Amino acid sequence: MSNARESDILEFLRTSAVTDPRVPIHIGDDLAALVPPHGDELLLAGADQVLEGVHFDLSTATLRDVGRKAMNRNLSDCAAMACVPIAALATLAMPRGRGLDAAELIAGLREAAGVFRCPLVGGDTGSWDGPLAISVTILGRSAGLSPVTRGGARAGDRLYVTGPLGGSILGRHLRFTPRVDLAIELAARFEIHAMLDLSDGLSRDLPRVCQASNVGATLDAARIPIHDDARQINDSRPALEHALHDGEDYELLFASPLAIDHPRVIEIGQIIEGSGVWLRDGDSAWPLETLGWEHRL
Amino acid sequence: MSNARESDILEFLRTSAVTDPRVPIHIGDDLAALVPPHGDELLLAGADQVLEGVHFDLSTATLRDVGRKAMNRNLSDCAAMACVPIAALATLAMPRGRGLDAAELIAGLREAAGVFRCPLVGGDTGSWDGPLAISVTILGRSAGLSPVTRGGARAGDRLYVTGPLGGSILGRHLRFTPRVDLAIELAARFEIHAMLDLSDGLSRDLPRVCQASNVGATLDAARIPIHDDARQINDSRPALEHALHDGEDYELLFASPLAIDHPRVIEIGQIIEGSGVWLRDGDSAWPLETLGWEHRL
Repeated sequence: MSNARESDILEFLRTSAVTDPRVPIHIGDDLAALVPPHGDELLLAGADQVLEGVHFDLSTATLRDVGRKAMNRNLSDCAAMACVPIAALATLAMPRGRGLDAAELIAGLREAAGVFRCPLVGGDTGSWDGPLAISVTILGRSAGLSPVTRGGARAGDRLYVTGPLGGSILGRHLRFTPRVDLAIELAARFEIHAMLDLSDGLSRDLPRVCQASNVGATLDAARIPIHDDARQINDSRPALEHALHDGEDYELLFASPLAIDHPRVIEIGQIIEGSGVWLRDGDSAWPLETLGWEHRL
Repeated sequence: MSNARESDILEFLRTSAVTDPRVPIHIGDDLAALVPPHGDELLLAGADQVLEGVHFDLSTATLRDVGRKAMNRNLSDCAAMACVPIAALATLAMPRGRGLDAAELIAGLREAAGVFRCPLVGGDTGSWDGPLAISVTILGRSAGLSPVTRGGARAGDRLYVTGPLGGSILGRHLRFTPRVDLAIELAARFEIHAMLDLSDGLSRDLPRVCQASNVGATLDAARIPIHDDARQINDSRPALEHALHDGEDYELLFASPLAIDHPRVIEIGQIIEGSGVWLRDGDSAWPLETLGWEHRL
């Protein structure tokens, strides 16, 4: 389908859409129609993009990888709010003349969404003289749980992450599992005051929780779980630096007043009064520099 | 804000978001939370993008124009379904080093959405070494009316449009009004079997209605309303050709069994059994060539 016209791709999407009682009007009309969340449920919505040369490089990633990553980043936002994904939409800006196969991208988008039974219900494909860009919108519902925001952390809360950090550039940034099920389990079992998914690095994402919550935080250097990938990166920086500053781990970072005993959960610090993030090592503590990922315009 | 960092733009979006009881969690968290449509209402969703060099040219359009166009194309999809817009999301891929002001784009997005009291509740801004790309997702609700699809036209229906066609390239493609209010009024007052918004040209969009409905159509050449812009284009093609084949009119095309008398509605043809679209002029009729807009990949 690499030289397919737009209408062929829409036809492909339309005819390959699985019949789903939650989607009375599927892809192919002006808009899709969905059965909305009901009762006290809230509708959750977010949009995120992956851009060639920024979030992926087609010399190391397949189009299917790219489609999966585009969808999984959005599913990871559902995890961050502890909500259930209900539908996704995607727009593809396809580079002209490079023979890239939109169907492979769509297969990747669908494969990732399918893990959570989340249908791809709409979108648009265009071609242009630019690089490949994929924008995904995710819709979710709050299934009996209040959405967990970034803004509820309180002094005295314990800080947790759901897995080891650092070195995702070795390949994990393309092949991560959004922590949707774990987030819902944790939010159902434990009191969680604030949560996000670690996309831009602990040193950039933790300050977001602190600012939204009007608190500060202390990280215990010895407790930060370091991913094997961070140790395998052959550069001059210590593995801990990678764990603190690398992006795209897509593990959950959350604050809870409880001492949580769960095999997937690692305590890494505390929420404190005031502002700022501190790194503590033994008796010393110093301000944590923000070196995580940020787009510059 | 042309050299602003991503976090500055998110902060700008967050702090400038208007408090809205329909949006309990606004832009700035991992996802926004919305009060969903209730009762028998359906949730409508669609996504559409505008790409530099394809849908706009920054030598003739301002960033505010581009923002408005990106949003209005999506609002026009709401018109096409006769639904009420409830929220929008947008991702911006900003070219690095060209000093483009994301705030102007966002102002254009908001200005267009504000006409329909539709809040911008989420999104993402990134920068890259590509051209400017804006992807918008629109959410709507079916406010007491069944969404009008493309698939319900029946032989014998009359075909209508809501305004004159052709020549939008002279500037109207940037400055059109989505027919949301008119669509809802028409769907509430009259039996409408099928509808879409004319984005890719009558000769490309009418076959979409026919294919979705398993019918054919005849257009009366003498009845096609021709926009003044189509007459002012100084090329060798007759104005009728522009009205039939130019894209981006964003008027509604719909099929109804009724003889509709409405100041904004113009009858242009009939739905017939079979397939294909015919152009009739007096006693002659010939197949209408499809020359409207299509992206080629």
